[in-house]
Amino acid sequence: MPLVDKLLGRPLASSEAKSERIGPAAGVPTFGLDALSSAAYGPEAALTILLPLGALGLGYIMPITAAIVVLLAIVYFSYRQTIAAYPGGGGSYTVAHENLGDYAGLLAAAALATDYVLNVAVGISAGVGALISAAPALQPHTLGLCLGILALLTVVNLRGVREAGLVFMAPTYLFVASLVSIIGWGVWLTLASGGRLHPAVAPPAMKPVAEAASIWIVLRAFASGCTAMTGVEAVSNGVQAFREPVVDNARRTLTIIIAILIVLLLGIAWLVQVYHIGATQPGSAQYQSILSQLIGAVAGRGAVYWIAISSILMVLCLSANTSFADFPRLCRAVAENSFLPHSFANRGRRLVYTEGIWVLAVLSGVIITAFGGVTDRLIPLFAVGAFLAFTMSQAGMVAHWRKQRERRHIGSMFINGLGALATAATVVVVILAKFVEGAWMVVLLVPALMAVMFAVRRHYDRDAVQTQGPQCISTKGLKPPLVVVPVENWTKVSEKALRFALTLSRDVIALHIECGEQTKSLRQEWPACVEQPAEKAGLGAPKLVVLKSPFRFVIQPIVDHVLKLEHEHADRTIAVVLPELIERRWYEYFLHNQRGKLLAALLLLQGDRRIVIVNVPWYLT
Amino acid sequence: MPLVDKLLGRPLASSEAKSERIGPAAGVPTFGLDALSSAAYGPEAALTILLPLGALGLGYIMPITAAIVVLLAIVYFSYRQTIAAYPGGGGSYTVAHENLGDYAGLLAAAALATDYVLNVAVGISAGVGALISAAPALQPHTLGLCLGILALLTVVNLRGVREAGLVFMAPTYLFVASLVSIIGWGVWLTLASGGRLHPAVAPPAMKPVAEAASIWIVLRAFASGCTAMTGVEAVSNGVQAFREPVVDNARRTLTIIIAILIVLLLGIAWLVQVYHIGATQPGSAQYQSILSQLIGAVAGRGAVYWIAISSILMVLCLSANTSFADFPRLCRAVAENSFLPHSFANRGRRLVYTEGIWVLAVLSGVIITAFGGVTDRLIPLFAVGAFLAFTMSQAGMVAHWRKQRERRHIGSMFINGLGALATAATVVVVILAKFVEGAWMVVLLVPALMAVMFAVRRHYDRDAVQTQGPQCISTKGLKPPLVVVPVENWTKVSEKALRFALTLSRDVIALHIECGEQTKSLRQEWPACVEQPAEKAGLGAPKLVVLKSPFRFVIQPIVDHVLKLEHEHADRTIAVVLPELIERRWYEYFLHNQRGKLLAALLLLQGDRRIVIVNVPWYLT
Repeated sequence: MPLVDKLLGRPLASSEAKSERIGPAAGVPTFGLDALSSAAYGPEAALTILLPLGALGLGYIMPITAAIVVLLAIVYFSYRQTIAAYPGGGGSYTVAHENLGDYAGLLAAAALATDYVLNVAVGISAGVGALISAAPALQPHTLGLCLGILALLTVVNLRGVREAGLVFMAPTYLFVASLVSIIGWGVWLTLASGGRLHPAVAPPAMKPVAEAASIWIVLRAFASGCTAMTGVEAVSNGVQAFREPVVDNARRTLTIIIAILIVLLLGIAWLVQVYHIGATQPGSAQYQSILSQLIGAVAGRGAVYWIAISSILMVLCLSANTSFADFPRLCRAVAENSFLPHSFANRGRRLVYTEGIWVLAVLSGVIITAFGGVTDRLIPLFAVGAFLAFTMSQAGMVAHWRKQRERRHIGSMFINGLGALATAATVVVVILAKFVEGAWMVVLLVPALMAVMFAVRRHYDRDAVQTQGPQCISTKGLKPPLVVVPVENWTKVSEKALRFALTLSRDVIALHIECGEQTKSLRQEWPACVEQPAEKAGLGAPKLVVLKSPFRFVIQPIVDHVLKLEHEHADRTIAVVLPELIERRWYEYFLHNQRGKLLAALLLLQGDRRIVIVNVPWYLT
Repeated sequence: MPLVDKLLGRPLASSEAKSERIGPAAGVPTFGLDALSSAAYGPEAALTILLPLGALGLGYIMPITAAIVVLLAIVYFSYRQTIAAYPGGGGSYTVAHENLGDYAGLLAAAALATDYVLNVAVGISAGVGALISAAPALQPHTLGLCLGILALLTVVNLRGVREAGLVFMAPTYLFVASLVSIIGWGVWLTLASGGRLHPAVAPPAMKPVAEAASIWIVLRAFASGCTAMTGVEAVSNGVQAFREPVVDNARRTLTIIIAILIVLLLGIAWLVQVYHIGATQPGSAQYQSILSQLIGAVAGRGAVYWIAISSILMVLCLSANTSFADFPRLCRAVAENSFLPHSFANRGRRLVYTEGIWVLAVLSGVIITAFGGVTDRLIPLFAVGAFLAFTMSQAGMVAHWRKQRERRHIGSMFINGLGALATAATVVVVILAKFVEGAWMVVLLVPALMAVMFAVRRHYDRDAVQTQGPQCISTKGLKPPLVVVPVENWTKVSEKALRFALTLSRDVIALHIECGEQTKSLRQEWPACVEQPAEKAGLGAPKLVVLKSPFRFVIQPIVDHVLKLEHEHADRTIAVVLPELIERRWYEYFLHNQRGKLLAALLLLQGDRRIVIVNVPWYLT
């Protein structure tokens, strides 16, 4: 196990859980990377939609950003309340499930799960895509780079929440520091220039007007810009990852994340306007991202530019980490209500929910591979899941406050109600604006996931009803089993099996398939070799039953005979003793027949509750 | 099972073996296709080597063919004797093994096995290659066609020896009839023409002389021509497939095959000479096979030409069938001496040695796929294996006659001795002439195969020594087992397991891994629910043992505790009772933990002979 230890760290005892918890400093990279990195693509997405309006489009970016910031503020206050109300972790699923019931809960869970998986795939390939536009020589390795980063994220997260937070701290704060200072510098320059602003590197001229402004295009730009808000819900879901005082630390982390995000969004919108920076056509040779133009305009193309650009690339790649922190917690919460396999709730060697991490890695790996590492087309699908989850969570909080029936909660209820309405409206806008581009997939996928989760729950419910503990153990009608030992020929292996059979019961039957010489000698040896010694020792004499098999089948005649015995002896358990040769080397598998395994499987599948399999091992040295 | 029945035919009872046997009419297609089809490439191979000699080369083809025919006659008489001496099936392996010992036997077996596998790959791709040179549109489907034919051959052979013989009868006799009549016609024409021979379609003019004749080139032509003799040994190996009188039928079949082959070889050599037909450069645009030129010269390009050519294509494809008839028998013979897994000796539902058929299909399928369906380069490897096997077989027969020490066998001994010398000399020539072209692979592969076979035998020998039957069953020290039941919580499943445990022994221990609430309630319920009822019923009270697991591992603490129990109770068997949920649907596998299976595997692997696993099934309905 030392290799595993090296890769994943030593196992952590359950009692060490407390010391694994994190504060706001590590909480921002752990739960905030998704939200913060979206500053890099949210404004860009909105401006791209405004492209046909030419320079006129820039006039809309400030109002659209303001609307998004207002929405963000509403969502922020709602989630602050959620964190206080659910200090055990109040993701959309938990809140919606507890207050609005199974359907609402699973709707939130399915939407969020879709969002998280997409986020990993899109985040990693966006980062790698940006890297490749900087170093085109890496182009042929796109898929390999994506999967490599995915593997890295998987391993780091398997090492535990704390470690992931620490590892990703440096790039996160580099990103925040460089972007915030560039924005500050830019704002200072514009204010100081007194209207005669000279960009260090002039952004490309904007395209001429191709379309008149319409409400529809503004709504679509808003819907696209809303991708800037994905990832905001992560903190409230992961409250339990914070150290005491849990609620304060979680709230502080959320505040930091939202504050930075608002500064970035407003700053970018302002600078884009004053520097006349517009989106360039994605995929064209002239393509240059908004942030690249903006940083160039403010700071020129020196060292600062490259530091800022590389921190953006890194944060894009690592934004997938938020999914890794949250998806396993979501699955755990759902699994604890039996809507997903219970194994999602097992904490692995490093106290994280290992199975969720693996499932996330595999699903997003499959998506990345299917799209060859270029997942641009998936970006529109994003916001639907996130906003659906926001809405369910806010609506759940409204129901939560209503249940309390206290005057002093009316304010809280109002905030959450406003949040629910605003995010619900956004869901509608996003679905309408993005339906053809791919939002229809989410509209199909979410109900399908919900159906699966309900099916899992039904299975567990049926299971629970059937296995529910009897008051006490019943000792009525306990009889020693009828023991059956298939015997091919007389060896030490069959002797060991028969000896064990004799310790279980006085009724032992040796089954043998007729097979020429072997049968003859077995019949001859049986009385003196087995029957008489057993009788002399005061044990029941094992009976030799020879079965004919005209078609040379070996397994089916034994199965049939055992089933017949089970039928004839309605009050007894039939124990089938199978000598099993233990292969310690893989190639030995081919040298011995595997009939025992097949026989056991068939007996268990075809048997009717009273057949029990006993494996008596035999070792070759 | 009806699908299997449709594909492979109903199962045949062992008692039907006699009626599955074949006579010479079906024996020729079953065991002769390899030998007969080689008339299509043996002369061609020799003439290709003679290409640099130009028209002068034709002068050597008659002597070379005569030498091959003499060799063939010697081999024929030797195998006639082998058939009589080994009516139970006297392949090279059997004869060499019985008379010369393990090394010689396995040398023959390894050589022959190599030859058979190559024969399937080369035969099928040669046939498909010829088909494609007739219909170039099929070129992109080369690999698919090869694998399709392989699948067809596999299925037909799984249906039984008799069926394969019947299915392939028509193409075989069409091939023989058309070639023999064309040769007869050609010979009549040359005799009747009185020296002024006019070919119906003139063969292409021969290349000018590029090289002087040398012994080396003639030897190489002879070595290449010897591929015409591969497949001759098949009949002697498959004697048991013939109906009574076994020896006579097998000999008659061999006689028919060899006679036709000699007629074909001599006829082709004669006609090639009189019609001035030379080989054309393989792979060049002007390439045309010798037989195509010859048939064209004799019969023109009418219907007869196309019938003859298509029968040649078919027979080339189906020549692989000889391998399918013989390889499984060879493996069976080797397996019966424990040099290969014993399962090769099991007769399947249609009385054929199923495992050998599958192994042959898979190995040749892998080779075909690796070479993309074009296996020309493998042709040189062929003859080495075949002639090595001939030599071992003849040498074995010499030893066989020597042992008899009777005067009247001196003649037989002489024939076999001559055969051994002649084929041994051929082996040397073939290896030298073809070493660089690929014979070195066979020289490496054969000893490797032998090493594997010896290793298998050593394993079985060790196995046999260790498991050899004790005189009689020992009833000393038989005690009821110490029973261990891992219990997660108190359900009907654990109750069933515990009830069964109580029927086995008075010493039952329930093992539980500490786990919060569950542990608490289990501890509370135990005395009233389990201990007291069991004691009241006069059974031993099951003891509840709670194991701590700080790292949340579930399996290892149980394994460790059971191993400790095994160590402490040196005189007792430890029976671990594992409740097993039987999943009747594949997806249920993901809904329940598979710890039971892992636990059983670890206990059996780490245990020391006294741990026994009891699977108590639980069914969900």
